[in-house]
Amino acid sequence: MLFVIGIGLSSPKDITLRGLEAIKSSSKVFLEGYTSILMESQKEDLEMLYEQKVITTDREMVETQSDEIINDAQKENVAFLVVGDPFGATTHIDLLLRCDQKNIPYEIIHNVSVMNGIGACGLSLYNFGQTVSIPFFTDSWKPTSWLRNISQNYRLGLHTLCLLDIKVKEQSEENLARGKKIFEPPRFMTVPTAIQQILSSLEQDAKMADDLGPPNKILAIGICRLGASTQAFVGGTLHELFQANDDVFGDPLHCLIIIGKCINPIERDFMAKWALDRKRWQEIALRDYNCHD
Amino acid sequence: MLFVIGIGLSSPKDITLRGLEAIKSSSKVFLEGYTSILMESQKEDLEMLYEQKVITTDREMVETQSDEIINDAQKENVAFLVVGDPFGATTHIDLLLRCDQKNIPYEIIHNVSVMNGIGACGLSLYNFGQTVSIPFFTDSWKPTSWLRNISQNYRLGLHTLCLLDIKVKEQSEENLARGKKIFEPPRFMTVPTAIQQILSSLEQDAKMADDLGPPNKILAIGICRLGASTQAFVGGTLHELFQANDDVFGDPLHCLIIIGKCINPIERDFMAKWALDRKRWQEIALRDYNCHD
Repeated sequence: MLFVIGIGLSSPKDITLRGLEAIKSSSKVFLEGYTSILMESQKEDLEMLYEQKVITTDREMVETQSDEIINDAQKENVAFLVVGDPFGATTHIDLLLRCDQKNIPYEIIHNVSVMNGIGACGLSLYNFGQTVSIPFFTDSWKPTSWLRNISQNYRLGLHTLCLLDIKVKEQSEENLARGKKIFEPPRFMTVPTAIQQILSSLEQDAKMADDLGPPNKILAIGICRLGASTQAFVGGTLHELFQANDDVFGDPLHCLIIIGKCINPIERDFMAKWALDRKRWQEIALRDYNCHD
Repeated sequence: MLFVIGIGLSSPKDITLRGLEAIKSSSKVFLEGYTSILMESQKEDLEMLYEQKVITTDREMVETQSDEIINDAQKENVAFLVVGDPFGATTHIDLLLRCDQKNIPYEIIHNVSVMNGIGACGLSLYNFGQTVSIPFFTDSWKPTSWLRNISQNYRLGLHTLCLLDIKVKEQSEENLARGKKIFEPPRFMTVPTAIQQILSSLEQDAKMADDLGPPNKILAIGICRLGASTQAFVGGTLHELFQANDDVFGDPLHCLIIIGKCINPIERDFMAKWALDRKRWQEIALRDYNCHD
């Protein structure tokens, strides 16, 4: 049996009892280590709690050598751990499809994902449109399809969850070309970088800028270290968040919510406490985001 | 401290270690008992695992007498348990806003919600639009605003998660008018009822019917008992699902996904196994839902 187990967002104790039992019954425990990170624990902390050795896998192993992970599951229990939920921001159905093809049974053990945990900021999950990923721009690569999706959600009155790029075990173009397995240090996009990319993209696209309106009237929330003990939410206009000191946001992981055109009175009151400028937040929310009674 | 704790979807062991520790440290444990149910456990099972008495609350208590729940949290730990995640299908920020007003500290302990757990069916959560709730129709009340949202998602190529109505501790109109606290037996909308309401609404609305196209070409997935040991996914056209025997879906809880216009090849292959008619599923998915390479 292959157990595919979500281990939550932050602490080793975010695992469920069911998940822990499955791990303890497994002869091998793999950790998917390339699409997210646990914010308040190291591999060693997991090993201590599980009383098991944990093998960190990279993208190459999961995507092209997955048989190494699943083959043992034909005879014994194997656990494959994923930060958050196995089907959150990254889906692992390619691994399950491979199990189906080889008649290997599997069981999913769910957990919170960033996709639902953001509800803690106060916005109803019902009013979110399509989620987007904002990739790190390079000098020569500045795609903006994600901005079209934000704009589409915004015009429909829906919030957008923006997941921010994570680069783990990436090779530089030079090392990739030379076939050198030298990896760059991990990089995690922060809220200020994401907003900088949004603003610079809007400068290049008059129609989009017109659809969204001025950045000093668009409300957003920076979500910092969701689920961790140091979790912080920071609310304000895009303009305010852009001008805020980096310290306000602190360490990664970050994501960003661009608020759609509807905030109900309870959401407005509850979220005011995250605002950089509480009075201004209430003013804009009441004037421009008030489509309820 | 008020702990607001998601307990997952099905078994008592879906609780996280962090959640269990918080419960054990609490002097009172409340269970929100009106927006969802745990599918494979009774209150007594929770009590046995927690070694604590669990008090089930109804909507009236949480929404109008919430001080009874939170007041003790000023001096000691109190746990408020929510099936799924505290901010999933139903958000509980009104309770947290009340805590803020009374300076009562609180901590959120997350878990899987139906809103992210549905990723297990194989569809990427990135490609979902706005979530809708389908309410039970009555003879005199047949609202269809949710159908407009399905249609909007569909035209954008996005999937729609349809949450299906749950009636727990509801009074009949007659008993409500007479002030009699007699409650109707609980009712849980099933996939066949949801599809029946969709089809009857489309018959009344030519424009919507035109936007969505014929029900024998719209692919959908019935999600039955998500996260439970008897979990089942059933795929097919709306027409096929409507004609299927009720036994195919089995007991509640159910929800329904109307698939948007994009299914990638991995999703198509993975999901084929849920299909009532595998060959037909592949045919339609390849012909009408193929917007990838």
